[in-house]
Amino acid sequence: MDRVLIAGVPGAGKTTVINKLKDYVSNLNIVNYGTVMFEIAKEKYSVESRDQLRKLSPEVQRELQKLAAEKIYKMEGDLVIDTHLAIKTPKGYMPGFPAELLSLINPDILVLITAQPEEIWERRRRDEARTRDMDSLIDIIQHERVNNAYLMAYSAISGSYALIVRNEEGKPEEAAKRIARLFE
Amino acid sequence: MDRVLIAGVPGAGKTTVINKLKDYVSNLNIVNYGTVMFEIAKEKYSVESRDQLRKLSPEVQRELQKLAAEKIYKMEGDLVIDTHLAIKTPKGYMPGFPAELLSLINPDILVLITAQPEEIWERRRRDEARTRDMDSLIDIIQHERVNNAYLMAYSAISGSYALIVRNEEGKPEEAAKRIARLFE
Amino acid sequence: MDRVLIAGVPGAGKTTVINKLKDYVSNLNIVNYGTVMFEIAKEKYSVESRDQLRKLSPEVQRELQKLAAEKIYKMEGDLVIDTHLAIKTPKGYMPGFPAELLSLINPDILVLITAQPEEIWERRRRDEARTRDMDSLIDIIQHERVNNAYLMAYSAISGSYALIVRNEEGKPEEAAKRIARLFE
Repeated sequence: MDRVLIAGVPGAGKTTVINKLKDYVSNLNIVNYGTVMFEIAKEKYSVESRDQLRKLSPEVQRELQKLAAEKIYKMEGDLVIDTHLAIKTPKGYMPGFPAELLSLINPDILVLITAQPEEIWERRRRDEARTRDMDSLIDIIQHERVNNAYLMAYSAISGSYALIVRNEEGKPEEAAKRIARLFE
Repeated sequence: MDRVLIAGVPGAGKTTVINKLKDYVSNLNIVNYGTVMFEIAKEKYSVESRDQLRKLSPEVQRELQKLAAEKIYKMEGDLVIDTHLAIKTPKGYMPGFPAELLSLINPDILVLITAQPEEIWERRRRDEARTRDMDSLIDIIQHERVNNAYLMAYSAISGSYALIVRNEEGKPEEAAKRIARLFE
Repeated sequence: MDRVLIAGVPGAGKTTVINKLKDYVSNLNIVNYGTVMFEIAKEKYSVESRDQLRKLSPEVQRELQKLAAEKIYKMEGDLVIDTHLAIKTPKGYMPGFPAELLSLINPDILVLITAQPEEIWERRRRDEARTRDMDSLIDIIQHERVNNAYLMAYSAISGSYALIVRNEEGKPEEAAKRIARLFE
C-alpha cells in the first residue's frame, strides 16, 4: 500500500498522466484533494463552486485543507492524491502541504510532473474550456521553480521520497509508466 | 491585521520599495529586524555597532534573533518586518528564520524582493556609502537562488504565503504597489 | 568543536576534497555516514554489501539512518560527516536528512560541494572502477538543483549554516582550504 501525491502546475499535463496511469496500475484509488476540500466546504460552508472555495478566508481554507487531509489519510489501498504543491493566490503562493498538513497525510512519495515552460504555455492557450488566466512565460518558469523548491522542502520535512517526472509533449504514457513503476 | 515579512539581497532595492510602500498604505508599522536585534544587543551585551553584532558567536546571535522575534510578535496593527531570509557569513548562509524562529514570529506573508543580478551588482557598485564587499555576479546569482529556496522552505514549514516581487530598474513604486495590495 | 556535514553528488569531487582537507586541519575526525549505516546493517541484518544495503525496505533504511545518526552524534572533537543530501532511488530522491534525523545529528554547518555539470559527467565517465550508472547531463543538472533545494530546506529546519563550495576542475585544494577555514 502506497500513498503517492501527484502534483504539477496547470498545463504540465497532470490530469492526462493520471488518467493514463489507470491503464498501467490495477485497483488504483485516485482522489482529488481539491474535490475533497470542495465537498467538505459544500457541506460545512454551503459553498457552491470551486471559485467560491478559492475566495474563502485563509483560515477557513486551512481548516478545509486539514479536514481533507484527515479524510484522505483514512482511505485504503494504493492511493494517488491528485493535488497542487502550491496554489497561486493574490497574496502569493499558498503552500499546499505545510508541515502541519504533511504530518496528517503522511505520503510515501511526492511526484512532481513537469514540462517545458513553452509547452505549458501553449497547452494553457489551447485549453479554452477552463478559461485560465494567461500567465506569462516568466510566471510559468517561476511557478515551476517554486514547485521544485516546495517539493524538496516537503520531502525534507516529512522524509517522503521526491520524484520529478518530465512529461514530454505527446508522450504522457511514458510519464504514466514511470509513475506506475512506483506501485510495483 | 497582517504581518508581512519583507526580504531581499542587498541591492535588490528592499529599502527603496519599503519607503515607497508608506505612500500606499496608511497606518503601516515598519520594523527592522536587525535594528531590534541591535537594540537588544546594546542593552544586553554592550554591543556598539552593527559590525560588532555580526561578530558575536552563533549562539549569542541565535539568542538575539529569538528575543527580537518575541518582541516583534507582540507588535500590533499591520506590520512590515524588514529583514533578510539568509545572512551571508564566513561559515556560509545563516538562515534568518529557522523553524524555531518562524513559530515565534508567525508571519502571514513572506515577500522576497528580487531584481536582475546585473542590476543588483550595478546598484551595489554605485552604493559607495555603505562600503559593501563586492560579490561577483556568480555570487549574486547564487544568493538569489539560495533566497528563493529559503523562501519556499520557510513557507512549507510555517504555512505562510510566499510572494516573489520583481523590482524592475526605475520602477520601485510598481513593486511597492504590488505589496500594498496585500494590506487591502 | 564543530560538526560539519559534507555532501555532493557523485562526481562533484567530495572524496578528493575531504582527503585534501586532512592536510589543512589537524585532529580532524572524518566519518562516512554510509559506512556507519553499513556496519550497523551488517551486525543487525547480516547485510554483506553496500548494494544489498540500498535494496533494503525504506522502513529498514530509515531505521538504519536513525541508528547511524545517534552513533555519530556521540562522536567527539571536530567532525566531518561525509554523506549525501539526497539518495537517488527508483522511487525518487530519498532525503538524506529529513527533519527527524536532523534533530538527532544536529550539525553546525552543512557543506555542499558542487561542480560544473559537464565536469561531473566527465569525471563519472572516467571513473570506471566504481561502475556507476551514467546519468545524462540533464539528470545531473536536476540532481544539483535538487541538492541545492534540500540544502536550504535542511538549513531552514535545523538552523544550521549552509555553505556552497564550488570545486573547480584541477583545484580541489582550493575547495579544501575554503572548508578548512570553518575549523579555525
